[in-house]
Amino acid sequence: MSLRSIRLSVYRQLEPTAWPRKGLSPTNMMLALLILIAVVNAIIETEPSISGGHESFFDDLEVGVASIFLIEYIARVWTVVENPRFAGYRFPRLRYALTPIALIDMAAILPAFFAFGGASSLVLRFFRVFRMIRLAKLGRTSRAWLTIREAFYEKRYEFGLVLGLVAIDVLISGSLLYWAEADAQPEKFGSIPRAMWWAIVTLTTVGYGDAYPVTTLGKIAASFAAITGVMLIALPTGLFAASFTEGIERHKSSGDEGPDA
Amino acid sequence: MSLRSIRLSVYRQLEPTAWPRKGLSPTNMMLALLILIAVVNAIIETEPSISGGHESFFDDLEVGVASIFLIEYIARVWTVVENPRFAGYRFPRLRYALTPIALIDMAAILPAFFAFGGASSLVLRFFRVFRMIRLAKLGRTSRAWLTIREAFYEKRYEFGLVLGLVAIDVLISGSLLYWAEADAQPEKFGSIPRAMWWAIVTLTTVGYGDAYPVTTLGKIAASFAAITGVMLIALPTGLFAASFTEGIERHKSSGDEGPDA
Amino acid sequence: MSLRSIRLSVYRQLEPTAWPRKGLSPTNMMLALLILIAVVNAIIETEPSISGGHESFFDDLEVGVASIFLIEYIARVWTVVENPRFAGYRFPRLRYALTPIALIDMAAILPAFFAFGGASSLVLRFFRVFRMIRLAKLGRTSRAWLTIREAFYEKRYEFGLVLGLVAIDVLISGSLLYWAEADAQPEKFGSIPRAMWWAIVTLTTVGYGDAYPVTTLGKIAASFAAITGVMLIALPTGLFAASFTEGIERHKSSGDEGPDA
Amino acid sequence: MSLRSIRLSVYRQLEPTAWPRKGLSPTNMMLALLILIAVVNAIIETEPSISGGHESFFDDLEVGVASIFLIEYIARVWTVVENPRFAGYRFPRLRYALTPIALIDMAAILPAFFAFGGASSLVLRFFRVFRMIRLAKLGRTSRAWLTIREAFYEKRYEFGLVLGLVAIDVLISGSLLYWAEADAQPEKFGSIPRAMWWAIVTLTTVGYGDAYPVTTLGKIAASFAAITGVMLIALPTGLFAASFTEGIERHKSSGDEGPDA
Repeated sequence: MSLRSIRLSVYRQLEPTAWPRKGLSPTNMMLALLILIAVVNAIIETEPSISGGHESFFDDLEVGVASIFLIEYIARVWTVVENPRFAGYRFPRLRYALTPIALIDMAAILPAFFAFGGASSLVLRFFRVFRMIRLAKLGRTSRAWLTIREAFYEKRYEFGLVLGLVAIDVLISGSLLYWAEADAQPEKFGSIPRAMWWAIVTLTTVGYGDAYPVTTLGKIAASFAAITGVMLIALPTGLFAASFTEGIERHKSSGDEGPDA
Repeated sequence: MSLRSIRLSVYRQLEPTAWPRKGLSPTNMMLALLILIAVVNAIIETEPSISGGHESFFDDLEVGVASIFLIEYIARVWTVVENPRFAGYRFPRLRYALTPIALIDMAAILPAFFAFGGASSLVLRFFRVFRMIRLAKLGRTSRAWLTIREAFYEKRYEFGLVLGLVAIDVLISGSLLYWAEADAQPEKFGSIPRAMWWAIVTLTTVGYGDAYPVTTLGKIAASFAAITGVMLIALPTGLFAASFTEGIERHKSSGDEGPDA
Repeated sequence: MSLRSIRLSVYRQLEPTAWPRKGLSPTNMMLALLILIAVVNAIIETEPSISGGHESFFDDLEVGVASIFLIEYIARVWTVVENPRFAGYRFPRLRYALTPIALIDMAAILPAFFAFGGASSLVLRFFRVFRMIRLAKLGRTSRAWLTIREAFYEKRYEFGLVLGLVAIDVLISGSLLYWAEADAQPEKFGSIPRAMWWAIVTLTTVGYGDAYPVTTLGKIAASFAAITGVMLIALPTGLFAASFTEGIERHKSSGDEGPDA
Repeated sequence: MSLRSIRLSVYRQLEPTAWPRKGLSPTNMMLALLILIAVVNAIIETEPSISGGHESFFDDLEVGVASIFLIEYIARVWTVVENPRFAGYRFPRLRYALTPIALIDMAAILPAFFAFGGASSLVLRFFRVFRMIRLAKLGRTSRAWLTIREAFYEKRYEFGLVLGLVAIDVLISGSLLYWAEADAQPEKFGSIPRAMWWAIVTLTTVGYGDAYPVTTLGKIAASFAAITGVMLIALPTGLFAASFTEGIERHKSSGDEGPDA
């Protein structure tokens, strides 16, 4: 068995679109599992009541899993010459290493070996999730993903406008409450940025209760804000519903049997 | 009147699909009422301000109603030979007793007679509700149930994907807030699992107020989390709406007069 | 001018469907305004910081407006013989006085003259709002009302089923949290009815924050409850959307120009 | 280059619809940026932890930006004679100065130069946002804006009715809670207006937690209120969804290729 044939079978194991059979290759299944383990590891490692006294175990697991990802990364760089998309170029491996996908992979692996600042390296580690998303896009979820992405793309200007309306509503509601409540609650409504935090919490109907109006005027303004918030939330929902319905119609008229054919 | 004819009429009383007339048989109506009584009994029995001093009454009611369910269970096992679905098999009664439906029935009856651990036996008792659902599926609600189940089934991959997106959003929002708020509020954001609890409460817009960001950075991150949460909630609603609309169209084009024909 | 012709013109002034011109009769407009005044009066009368020291003014206004309603009631009973719906019967006035509409009117008028228990008479006074709804149904809102009522009626079994699913979710979520949190927070989760209050507040995403889980197990269960709650809320929204869309289609295919023709 | 040709080119720079090329003119882009700066300035100026000690910088920026807006305003009045809409009239400049748009512009500029009462002048300054909206309506967002406005216009009576139903639900829920909780919590439910604040916070599912029922009766009434609130919120969402879907259909049947053609 020549080195080239080994490279080809490694490539087929790693590149989901090159896998000749249905579903994911055993290597990719194992890698998906390892990503899940690495993510769960990174989550519970931060909880002292679980990781307390076992820090070295979590660290070892982290480094161990990252080592496999590093091997995978090297194998990907090595086998990328089999990929027709990179075959025509002069430095296919370098070119691959500079794609956003490969850079994210690298950024997700490195923090395990070097001690960066705790939290920023943590965020980097979660880049691994992106690779899992790429694998997820392969199976049956790919059509689901397409449906949702299409619905969003179709109405992208409308969604942008809704975000703009939310921003204006946050600005107006925040200014009104600042005007009504600044004297009564300077700590919570003493400036527009503070009042805007209240406005976002109210308009999204989260309503923590850390800030709420106490004056009559403030309560009347807050009532209007809450009702406009509910109306604004109704807009994107209606847009998604219409776009999904339209997508179904389009697929039908273009000869498809619908998305569940 | 022979034993066989008695068995047949008992079977018709118990098996809703075998009942020759419209609606539910008198026996099933009474059983539905008894299930409701048993469920309400199990609920208020746990409230000391109501059951205090009357524990024996609640216990007696529990055992009394469960005895009727036991008789019903035995009658079902006895009469199952009348059911064409079980008629062809060698041990129809054993076969029936091992169906999930019969096992759930048994699991719902037993806790009344044996003193298991309080809470787990409680959960078992609520299995009775499942039988009520089965009865409910018979009447006019059966078409309603079909509409809802079809709408869900139609878009099952999309709903799965939405759950995946929610999980990723919880992960990212939780990590960001852990990064922004861990120092200011170690009790509430001192680990990613703790911050994920906050993330779920915020993204579903429940917003208890037990945990909320206090730093400027945390509030900005939380604002984005809240807005993405509202957008993610819009997705399943839009999917249901589209699927219900599609279901109506499908029924029309297949010659139906619509779901209310 | 005979008494009969006076009765006819009074009847036309009072009965919106008998009013020969467009819109509401002057009498009904004035009555709508009086209902609004009476309702606002009944609301602010209860606020001591506004009504304090002016109780007699509010009481006088209450009795004054109610006197006009009483005259209106007597005029309605007197003129009902002009109504073709009651013309054929033997005692048309008694028959009218016993309709639910007339009984509600009477129930809304009486509390102003007799001093019943404070709060229960208050609820009675709000019956006046129902009359306003009847007036509102005449104008352009009648088509809007029809659209909404039709959408609800069309899917009544589905909405019933959703309520049933909410009830089951409240029961299951409540039982789980009772099981997980009863020991840690007996005051808030010490019984299933108490835990069900938490469940309703969570599943509707209101989230007051008066009760929330503190144990890990409770938080995991609550996370599932919150997500199922959001999914259940998506159901009625999708049903309304589908039914409104269907209603539009139906009006189109039946030759209408759409609901805004 | 004559004064008239200067006026024409200034007019084309200022009036978006007169700009001969695609997109916005450089002047309008710069003005949009300045509006954004002025708005952000007005927001953070109120936050003492940022503006503390730099008040003069924020004031100077405010006056500086407002001066440019004043020059723009004068230029607009001067060049309005080029606008065909105003060309026919006798005093085109006065006529323009009295349009709502020009009055809002003036109202947004003046507070920077005169020291009115703090908060009311603040609200005036945010009128600038309206001009930004006018600019936004030009680009691709104009079609998005049309879609949303049409969907709202189409169902305006239905939305009005929903607001009416919300008002009635607030009234009934508030009265019930007043009746159930007034004795237990006079501070929060001691009058109907107070209970109505609770009702709005609950029905919009914001749920701050500043007021919630503590009696059994109050909790049962609040449960019904919360569920009816969720159902009422489902109504506008469904209306938007249906109206968006209908809009797509209408565009299709009128020969358009759909809104994304």
